[in-house]
Amino acid sequence: MSRVGGGGVFVTVGKSTCDERRPSDFPEGAGGAGSRGAMSKRVEVYDTTLRDGTQMEGISFSVGDKIAIARRLDKLGFAFVEGGWPGSNPKDMEFFQSVADAPLQTAKVAAFGATRRPGKQVESDPNIKALLDTRAPVVTIVAKAWPLHVTDVLRTTLEENLAMVRDSVEYLVGQGLEVLFDAEHFFDGYKDDPEYATEVLRAAAAGGAACLVLCETNGGLLPQELPPILQACKKAVKVPLGFHAHNDSGCAVANTLVAVAAGLRHVQGTVNGYGERCGNTDLCAVIPSIELKMGLSCLAEGQLQNLLDASRYVAEMANVVPQDHQPYVGSSAFAHKGGLHADAIVKNPRTYEHVSPQAVGNRRRVLVSELAGRSTVVHRVKEMGYEVAKGDPQTAEILGRVEELEKLGYAFEAADGSFELLVHRVMRGHTPFFDLLGFRTSVEKREDGRLISEATIKVRVGDELEHTAAEGDGPVNALDLALRKALRPFYPSVAEMSLVDFRVRVLDAGSGTAARVRVLIESADHEASWSTVGVSENVIEASWQALVDSVEYKLLRDRTRTTERKADG
Amino acid sequence: MSRVGGGGVFVTVGKSTCDERRPSDFPEGAGGAGSRGAMSKRVEVYDTTLRDGTQMEGISFSVGDKIAIARRLDKLGFAFVEGGWPGSNPKDMEFFQSVADAPLQTAKVAAFGATRRPGKQVESDPNIKALLDTRAPVVTIVAKAWPLHVTDVLRTTLEENLAMVRDSVEYLVGQGLEVLFDAEHFFDGYKDDPEYATEVLRAAAAGGAACLVLCETNGGLLPQELPPILQACKKAVKVPLGFHAHNDSGCAVANTLVAVAAGLRHVQGTVNGYGERCGNTDLCAVIPSIELKMGLSCLAEGQLQNLLDASRYVAEMANVVPQDHQPYVGSSAFAHKGGLHADAIVKNPRTYEHVSPQAVGNRRRVLVSELAGRSTVVHRVKEMGYEVAKGDPQTAEILGRVEELEKLGYAFEAADGSFELLVHRVMRGHTPFFDLLGFRTSVEKREDGRLISEATIKVRVGDELEHTAAEGDGPVNALDLALRKALRPFYPSVAEMSLVDFRVRVLDAGSGTAARVRVLIESADHEASWSTVGVSENVIEASWQALVDSVEYKLLRDRTRTTERKADG
Repeated sequence: MSRVGGGGVFVTVGKSTCDERRPSDFPEGAGGAGSRGAMSKRVEVYDTTLRDGTQMEGISFSVGDKIAIARRLDKLGFAFVEGGWPGSNPKDMEFFQSVADAPLQTAKVAAFGATRRPGKQVESDPNIKALLDTRAPVVTIVAKAWPLHVTDVLRTTLEENLAMVRDSVEYLVGQGLEVLFDAEHFFDGYKDDPEYATEVLRAAAAGGAACLVLCETNGGLLPQELPPILQACKKAVKVPLGFHAHNDSGCAVANTLVAVAAGLRHVQGTVNGYGERCGNTDLCAVIPSIELKMGLSCLAEGQLQNLLDASRYVAEMANVVPQDHQPYVGSSAFAHKGGLHADAIVKNPRTYEHVSPQAVGNRRRVLVSELAGRSTVVHRVKEMGYEVAKGDPQTAEILGRVEELEKLGYAFEAADGSFELLVHRVMRGHTPFFDLLGFRTSVEKREDGRLISEATIKVRVGDELEHTAAEGDGPVNALDLALRKALRPFYPSVAEMSLVDFRVRVLDAGSGTAARVRVLIESADHEASWSTVGVSENVIEASWQALVDSVEYKLLRDRTRTTERKADG
Repeated sequence: MSRVGGGGVFVTVGKSTCDERRPSDFPEGAGGAGSRGAMSKRVEVYDTTLRDGTQMEGISFSVGDKIAIARRLDKLGFAFVEGGWPGSNPKDMEFFQSVADAPLQTAKVAAFGATRRPGKQVESDPNIKALLDTRAPVVTIVAKAWPLHVTDVLRTTLEENLAMVRDSVEYLVGQGLEVLFDAEHFFDGYKDDPEYATEVLRAAAAGGAACLVLCETNGGLLPQELPPILQACKKAVKVPLGFHAHNDSGCAVANTLVAVAAGLRHVQGTVNGYGERCGNTDLCAVIPSIELKMGLSCLAEGQLQNLLDASRYVAEMANVVPQDHQPYVGSSAFAHKGGLHADAIVKNPRTYEHVSPQAVGNRRRVLVSELAGRSTVVHRVKEMGYEVAKGDPQTAEILGRVEELEKLGYAFEAADGSFELLVHRVMRGHTPFFDLLGFRTSVEKREDGRLISEATIKVRVGDELEHTAAEGDGPVNALDLALRKALRPFYPSVAEMSLVDFRVRVLDAGSGTAARVRVLIESADHEASWSTVGVSENVIEASWQALVDSVEYKLLRDRTRTTERKADG
């Protein structure tokens, strides 16, 4: 735990919480690693996904979710995991009790709360008491650093606010806790009244806070505003500084990196940037830049490559669809579409990749599209285990078919399943698993408003005919159910798969209801997921094509695996 | 058009393309407005949504989409709209021909292309010729600024690359065009070999380029790296500099703002940040910060408040779900949870809002109070010619119905027709023009592959029944034709209208083919166009709802007009 020594001398006792012993100038180059010993190379990551993250519309975690997420972040090597605000949310107490009984390995658990109330004693403040009851080794105390908030929202005097800060921090430090201080609205406060904002920091320092976290609460700060304010603060107080930002200007990640470049060694944020309004600092974007580009470390040795998994895991727990275009960990973060780009990437990855995708557990994806060239196709076909070269006739045939279909409106970049089927058809003359003799799907709306969706289907498998029907929630759902019902006697494994996503895009705006539509279907079984595509002026026909490809893909994969197992045995 | 004068003196001829006459230091505070006359207060916005934006997975625009988007951005006051790469995509030529025949009002149309090829004559280069064929007044020429790319990807000498740059720019300037120069991979190039990267800029300047755009192509740059490089470039060349960034480190927006703060006056990006991998600079995030916080202007007078509409419009055209948490224009960007924040916001919006939501056409959403929603509704209802006040029971009823429907997945921002019908129903108890007794629509696929889509429909108008049927290109088209056929005897004017656009969005990803879908239909007659919406798990039912609203809207408008004419006469 670090403390302020007498006379403003920066004395480190035991483990320093926030090391900021680098020079305070705005550095040139990549931020520089600094050369003042091992300590300055470490940036403490403070996670507030479980508190600030849950301020995002639609996110709420159970106590079990919170514990699971905390353990996952602990494994990565986060320095702090903030569990919640026990004074504001009684459910949070359960979390703290659970982690007190079975502590985390690396991360310190932090409890969040406000200072004592105006005009009251700190000892008898129920919120302060709740913080102690958590048994968390670290508490983070928030207070106002903007006169506007003190007078208009808190409705107390500027002097009393300073006393509240000092008293509360001092009392909790006296109870043996490591106290971090969150200076709320620090930058707006500083811009209105730098002297008072600084006084608030001094009050927390005088109380014994281990770290003074400058909070960019409204998220409006621009990166060019930051360096002079940080320099002034570092001159004014000798306690280490931290940084907490929101993304209302789209600058939370950048501002955090600027703060680290300026020597701050404590950064707060949330996994995937979850948070109110435009979100908090996305730790998944900040951590790789710090580790890979600034010569500093945040995580436990070797854990950076598990960042993508952790990001997806938290998204899963939050029930939020992952953002494809998220820096570093998005599924498109290393996806290359342009033909020239794809060509160059194969020659030398540095040409179009700022870091190696593997460094964060991601992978390169070369997308097949109208803009892609021959080398993209060769690359993908090779990934599937076939031996081909650029000049092979099969390569030309695959490329020709892709181009022809894309002219009709097909898109293979998001339909890996349909693309692979196309390749198999060319490479080994794959014959379909069944023949369609006909289908009919209907939707009827009766006078009472009742809707009936039905599909009938007739297929031939080998010499056998199957003619069946099903009802569904809509015509495509009915068709899907009827098709799999018809195939089940011949291919029982179609019962294992299900359709997990269904997308429709109208291709020619301006043709009204006679426009061509593209349907993308994502299917999954217990082992994998795959996407398939269909295009037609008729939404039912387009859906049918994607459905057929989806089932064919599943059956082909099952057969390939069975053959491989036989060959092994 | 700006040009380089002799001896490196910065001479402006006519309209300057990129004004950067501010001091080059990293400014303190909000970036400062500068005080060097009107010119330096203007930042040119160069949009590349139609080229770089389409590099995003899943985005592809038709020529009609591109023209519509270009006209929308023109209205906002963007300085340049880049239409495409005619040498790489033959479809782009159609766009250029169309805008050459019916030019934009404010924005200059730019065509994008590479320099001449190594060892070839510029006059006979087919790509250069394609640029001239576009008749665009501006061309943007891209070239390599990183030796690695010159030798490994382009496979030519460093000297030849410089000659290619100079020759190509000079030739196109000689043809009377305004030439912007994109220095690809400029920052990676600069970090590897500052002298060569600078030489590339000098070659373009010598050729007569009006602006040298420094491209952060791989998106890996951190904001603290930018100022010293920009300062060095400004010393080395006297032609105005521009900035183009990608978001692989999550810093595209911040880096762009740092560049503007450093005096650059030309910024490139895309609407909503669409682009390959992690996207390009999001112009919707950059423009408000520049206009509201840096004292500079980007858009036409009064157009900033239309930014949100433009953002949604482009998202709709791209068929990409809008990002709720997008800075400034996201639907959650000014959403405040109940309790303290909401209370403080009502007392003083500055407490938790970095700018006014109205400034960008957004609105505050305070989840415990419907005050904000109410004034919006009053505003829209008044626009329709009704006299209402905030406290009226009709206002509450309209608001209640909208909220209820939006919970089910309806969206009225893009469905003015459905919204107006809802208002009419509340305000004057509008009764429908017809009753549906039932419909049935079917799609049959026969063994020979032939598809038959048919709809039958039974409606009652007054005391009369009409039972009819139609075939179409798909089930919705058949339903549309059958409905209008059934109504024509009673309402001949339905023959005047047609459906011009049809969009389908799946609302709950992860529910497979049983997911709810939202259908948006745009209809038009010879006087106006209107949009209507339907939501259901069944795509046919959702389409039906939107079709019915579309016809009702048309008939209601016709009746209102007839009444008005009678009143006039």
